[in-house]
Amino acid sequence: MDAEIIAVGSELLTPERIDTNSLWLTAQLNELGIEVVAKMVIGDDRRRLAEAVRAAWERSPLLLVTGGLGPTEDDVTREAVADALGRELVFQPEILAAIEERFRRAGRVMAEINRRQAYVIQGAEVLPNGVGTAPGQWIREQRRAVVLLPGPPGELKPMFTDQVRPRLRALGPPLAIRTLTFRVAGIAESDLDQRIAPIYKRYADLATTVLAAPGDIQVHLRARCEEEAKAQSLVEEAGRQIEAVLGDRIYSNGEPMEVVLGRLLAERRATVAVAESCTGGLLAQRITSVPGSSAYFVGGFLVYTDALKSALAGVPQHLLREHGAVSEPVARALAEGTRARTAATYALAVTGVAGPGGGTESTPVGTVFIALAGSEGALARKFRFLGDRERVRAFAAQTAMDMLRRQLLGLPQLPGVAPS
Amino acid sequence: MDAEIIAVGSELLTPERIDTNSLWLTAQLNELGIEVVAKMVIGDDRRRLAEAVRAAWERSPLLLVTGGLGPTEDDVTREAVADALGRELVFQPEILAAIEERFRRAGRVMAEINRRQAYVIQGAEVLPNGVGTAPGQWIREQRRAVVLLPGPPGELKPMFTDQVRPRLRALGPPLAIRTLTFRVAGIAESDLDQRIAPIYKRYADLATTVLAAPGDIQVHLRARCEEEAKAQSLVEEAGRQIEAVLGDRIYSNGEPMEVVLGRLLAERRATVAVAESCTGGLLAQRITSVPGSSAYFVGGFLVYTDALKSALAGVPQHLLREHGAVSEPVARALAEGTRARTAATYALAVTGVAGPGGGTESTPVGTVFIALAGSEGALARKFRFLGDRERVRAFAAQTAMDMLRRQLLGLPQLPGVAPS
Repeated sequence: MDAEIIAVGSELLTPERIDTNSLWLTAQLNELGIEVVAKMVIGDDRRRLAEAVRAAWERSPLLLVTGGLGPTEDDVTREAVADALGRELVFQPEILAAIEERFRRAGRVMAEINRRQAYVIQGAEVLPNGVGTAPGQWIREQRRAVVLLPGPPGELKPMFTDQVRPRLRALGPPLAIRTLTFRVAGIAESDLDQRIAPIYKRYADLATTVLAAPGDIQVHLRARCEEEAKAQSLVEEAGRQIEAVLGDRIYSNGEPMEVVLGRLLAERRATVAVAESCTGGLLAQRITSVPGSSAYFVGGFLVYTDALKSALAGVPQHLLREHGAVSEPVARALAEGTRARTAATYALAVTGVAGPGGGTESTPVGTVFIALAGSEGALARKFRFLGDRERVRAFAAQTAMDMLRRQLLGLPQLPGVAPS
Repeated sequence: MDAEIIAVGSELLTPERIDTNSLWLTAQLNELGIEVVAKMVIGDDRRRLAEAVRAAWERSPLLLVTGGLGPTEDDVTREAVADALGRELVFQPEILAAIEERFRRAGRVMAEINRRQAYVIQGAEVLPNGVGTAPGQWIREQRRAVVLLPGPPGELKPMFTDQVRPRLRALGPPLAIRTLTFRVAGIAESDLDQRIAPIYKRYADLATTVLAAPGDIQVHLRARCEEEAKAQSLVEEAGRQIEAVLGDRIYSNGEPMEVVLGRLLAERRATVAVAESCTGGLLAQRITSVPGSSAYFVGGFLVYTDALKSALAGVPQHLLREHGAVSEPVARALAEGTRARTAATYALAVTGVAGPGGGTESTPVGTVFIALAGSEGALARKFRFLGDRERVRAFAAQTAMDMLRRQLLGLPQLPGVAPS
């Protein structure tokens, strides 16, 4: 079944705001085998919204309208959808009573303006709102439906899950949609696409999306078939071939690197410390963004200046003098010193030039050395990451975590760029 | 003038992707006095896209269509817009020659498929693409226009700036839109709205958007008038009143806290170090995200364990035993020890319970102590931040930076929650 989503609200047409409800709704609908074929954002304009609803309703059998159900004059969704469907709005005293009761429980008196929320489109089923005052509405015509949902995600999500999802299931036998995700580190987007395009292009019923973040590429496979088993076998078949060509560069089926790394450390009862120069805390921040990371992260050093690289992490001053702060010997000494002073099982050290300033001919912006120290000494790799400051830092943090992941899994380390 | 934006691409209808070009375009259009009244995302479906273009073109005098200009069968924008306008597609040999030349310079032979990109809608002006192969198109009818732009932001942005913007200016006298932004720290969203709503509600021609992130609220004022001077005086008049009620909680007119703080430190030739427990590197990461931050950020400690709070930052063990790691005395000792060991002008220390685990009755999740040490000793504040791990950490990092901002500006510190 095809669906369209209309988000209502003038604030969603400013440069600062974006409709994110539709992403969540799309995932939910896809799970039910329903495909989203168009999305729209319309301001608080009754006539324009009515036209958009009318046009969408002519094209598609399922229409979700989010937002514009509040009590103010700006909230025009009820009126506009009634206009579009050629139906009346009907006042429902039970809804008003429920809203009044809600205010009473909070020790407040309902403002007269909230009466507007008690109007329902003729023939609609009311979807009670357990969290806010605006009820949703469900209007069914044979195998087609229009659904009105409140805009705040905290109200929309439970209403969809508890009340809309079961109604959609009852609407008819859907197509089956099955998905499979790979997260991949240690390969450039263009290299990855060159390897996997010959695979996914063989499957007409398979939609493939490649999302590239620095050092972290997501490959989403999505099959849509009449039969669930067919969709499942399609993503599995293509997935196996992609696994074969990407190998141990695949690090998860959706979880971010810090979660994968955290589980590996916890399973081995190992701990990690960090010393960060150019990443300035980003590596530690990502590791500690995981709940429970205090089980394996102990701490470490932020060492922006050469003086602190020596004073805090114990890097010998002659190494800094002879090789410079952005060098393989300093990266190794940082990792070893940090491991010694924190007594962690492993230490990761990052030193590089994030830019935009600070580059030289021999050490251009994007040059980063990453070292990993363990019980058997330290290894270091040189990298040359491309992009702005934010990208270089993100690449470095992700690559450092991937080095430790490979160490913990007994996988060979990737080569990096040969030190020059 | 009213405009609509249609983004084309089935990948933009998945749960993972969102059309962000329209945000950038909206800001650009607003600057020209053009208001965006509807946005749409349509998949790679010629018939559906043609219908959407036809409907938008009936409603609005300016239509921007982004994406779908590539060389493959999936790229249907040229055909769909031609269908919608009832015009032919015309093959233009000059475009083909330019694309072939582009490939030749890269040492490659043009694939036959790229011929599709040489078709232009009858009567359209071609907008050359300096970055990629897909040219844009500009179709004008009296004071109305349809613009086709390539989807990749790196191609779309220069094409809009260099070729579309001047054409839009020539299209007619626009309305004037003026904006004013305040960024605010140290106040809850509901308190802020209660203070400023009576002001912005007095102005019918003023649109106000409040965007709340943890510890960081943005207030956007936007006036749209026939005359530029009127729009300007409107945002200024309302802005002055908002400044009067929010006072020194306003920290910038758009720049993030780390930029404001960095400039204050650099101006005073002061430096800062940090000791982070529950924020796990987030505070340092934000400070060092600013290019040039090595001029004032020296480094510091990540101290997740009690042992490292003592060993690295010099917190006396008896304080940890007597008060616990999440306490005012430990926060002060962390800040003082970090300042002493890094020789920075100031040190910020954060210790707290980010959750979801680790809370107790006396120190529930969200309890955070932040201390600031300077030449005259250390001060500390207790906070109770609400929300999940990510929110608590974000609140803590922002609030720590705001404490140092207030110190540098000679402003009184906000009270926090009285230590219990």
